[in-house]
Amino acid sequence: MKSVITCLPLKERHKQMLEQVSTECVFCHLGTQRPTKEQLSEANVVIGNLPPALLADAPKLELLQLNSAGTDGYTVPGLLPEGAKLANASGAYGLAISEHMVGCVLALMKKLPLYLENQKQHQWKDEGPVRSVYGSRTLVVGMGDIGSEFARRMNAMGSEVIGVRRHAGDKPDYVAEVCTMDRLDEELEKADIIACSLPGTPSTCHLFDEERIRKMKRGAILVNVGRGTLIDPEVLAWALTEGYLGGACVDVTEPEPLPADSVLWNAPNLILTPHVSGGYHLEITLDRIVEIAARNLKAVCEGGEIVNEVDCSSGYRKLENRHRNS
Amino acid sequence: MKSVITCLPLKERHKQMLEQVSTECVFCHLGTQRPTKEQLSEANVVIGNLPPALLADAPKLELLQLNSAGTDGYTVPGLLPEGAKLANASGAYGLAISEHMVGCVLALMKKLPLYLENQKQHQWKDEGPVRSVYGSRTLVVGMGDIGSEFARRMNAMGSEVIGVRRHAGDKPDYVAEVCTMDRLDEELEKADIIACSLPGTPSTCHLFDEERIRKMKRGAILVNVGRGTLIDPEVLAWALTEGYLGGACVDVTEPEPLPADSVLWNAPNLILTPHVSGGYHLEITLDRIVEIAARNLKAVCEGGEIVNEVDCSSGYRKLENRHRNS
Repeated sequence: MKSVITCLPLKERHKQMLEQVSTECVFCHLGTQRPTKEQLSEANVVIGNLPPALLADAPKLELLQLNSAGTDGYTVPGLLPEGAKLANASGAYGLAISEHMVGCVLALMKKLPLYLENQKQHQWKDEGPVRSVYGSRTLVVGMGDIGSEFARRMNAMGSEVIGVRRHAGDKPDYVAEVCTMDRLDEELEKADIIACSLPGTPSTCHLFDEERIRKMKRGAILVNVGRGTLIDPEVLAWALTEGYLGGACVDVTEPEPLPADSVLWNAPNLILTPHVSGGYHLEITLDRIVEIAARNLKAVCEGGEIVNEVDCSSGYRKLENRHRNS
Repeated sequence: MKSVITCLPLKERHKQMLEQVSTECVFCHLGTQRPTKEQLSEANVVIGNLPPALLADAPKLELLQLNSAGTDGYTVPGLLPEGAKLANASGAYGLAISEHMVGCVLALMKKLPLYLENQKQHQWKDEGPVRSVYGSRTLVVGMGDIGSEFARRMNAMGSEVIGVRRHAGDKPDYVAEVCTMDRLDEELEKADIIACSLPGTPSTCHLFDEERIRKMKRGAILVNVGRGTLIDPEVLAWALTEGYLGGACVDVTEPEPLPADSVLWNAPNLILTPHVSGGYHLEITLDRIVEIAARNLKAVCEGGEIVNEVDCSSGYRKLENRHRNS
């Protein structure tokens, strides 16, 4: 028998999906409640982002299936018991987040924040030239599920998309070219839109600093939906105020929540959303998380490969695994 | 020799494109200035939306090439001299307007107006569930250039698109189905997004009245980029306030400009833009208008078919012509 704890807001249909996986499992569906020490002491599988500190009480853990794509706080060596596997929910968020990204980019290009402000003042006023996705060049930094889904949509609307990823590999048909991170600076100069969905790791922390922003095409649009640590809020506010960036859409900040007195709130041509582009704001996201969890639960019960397995030392999905699924 | 007057803000490259058409033409490029009576008395071709009242002074006119897709005011019988042809600029605006439409729909679905307001208040606040284009059903009423380009984009993002047009015909591959106007009410009940790009004619005036809005799926999003006469502003404000519509994006109103005291300005979940989605706000739009004008100028000089010819009695493009080009 496997003892399975779920700690995410499952609907009845989700519970059924998981319970159908195997008759060898005993489930404890906690929703947003925390498990007791006793429950944890028996747990073989945990589905959901259990606070990392509680993992010390789960010595029998074989799989921690996160409900997030990000793995911050879970990739500390020794956090999981020997042999336990960590999997993320990459693949669940691409749809929701990429639509949010496209919406924000188009809103900036078409000056919607300005028109909404005029609307509030009952002002019928032409605000002049706009920009188009069609004919633009988009640099997608991070070609995981989110970056790839964004690339697909931008390509479908007539943008030339260049993908940047850690490892070379096949070129999907919706990008014009794929390159590795060593080409980043060179590509920054040419892009009209730069979209980042990178995990929060030491190598991505403040990756976009003043120097790098000065390398961009003047007036480019920067999108960040990965982690807020990618860019210092003061640097982002400066880049927008000085016009190095023509616009930015960020759903993540450093820190979160962004303090009320941050200079970033009032930066021009910025759409700032409070880490809401993913989450469970679309029902289909939770459906997809449960699909991944059910697949991995089956692998634990019957033997087989864990999908979305995360390498605890890097915080990235394991490469062999990544190639097989993307 | 043909005397050609252009009255739109052409750049040097546009003038060259037109002048290369034939050595048999004498050009008078007026920009936004009005022609004199003398200039008009000799004009064989006018490119640009000359005020209709001036047409009486142009007895030699063979072609009036509008710079707009709409033909309001130009389809009065007897306005043009006997034998003169009228052509619109359909095909030039689809790109600009369809991108604006997609941007507005996504902005509403992702609650961007709400988040922009919170941003102004420095509020980090989750506003809950959003909607997605993926998995939605979109009804595109009017499948000209604008409707078709919007349909393409929505389809590419995973919406099931149904097209409504005046005449049955081939089904483009980016729509699931095409039907004629008699099916409108039946289709309204099923759509999550209803996008209208219809010309302003007696048959489209107040086509979306209270009764028809009550037939829609509750909470649907209505987009109008054709003519403001499609829906009375008080009816639209009522539909939004009462929640019959979950949102609306209108780039056209009745009348224009919308008076500052209209109830529409403050209607909830509305994105109202002042007839700016087309125009010359994208450079490529003017390029495309000039391409159409050059093609038709060549037809006047050398003989051949006028593209985008408008039937002066209906205000629609001539059917045989329409089929050949769409």
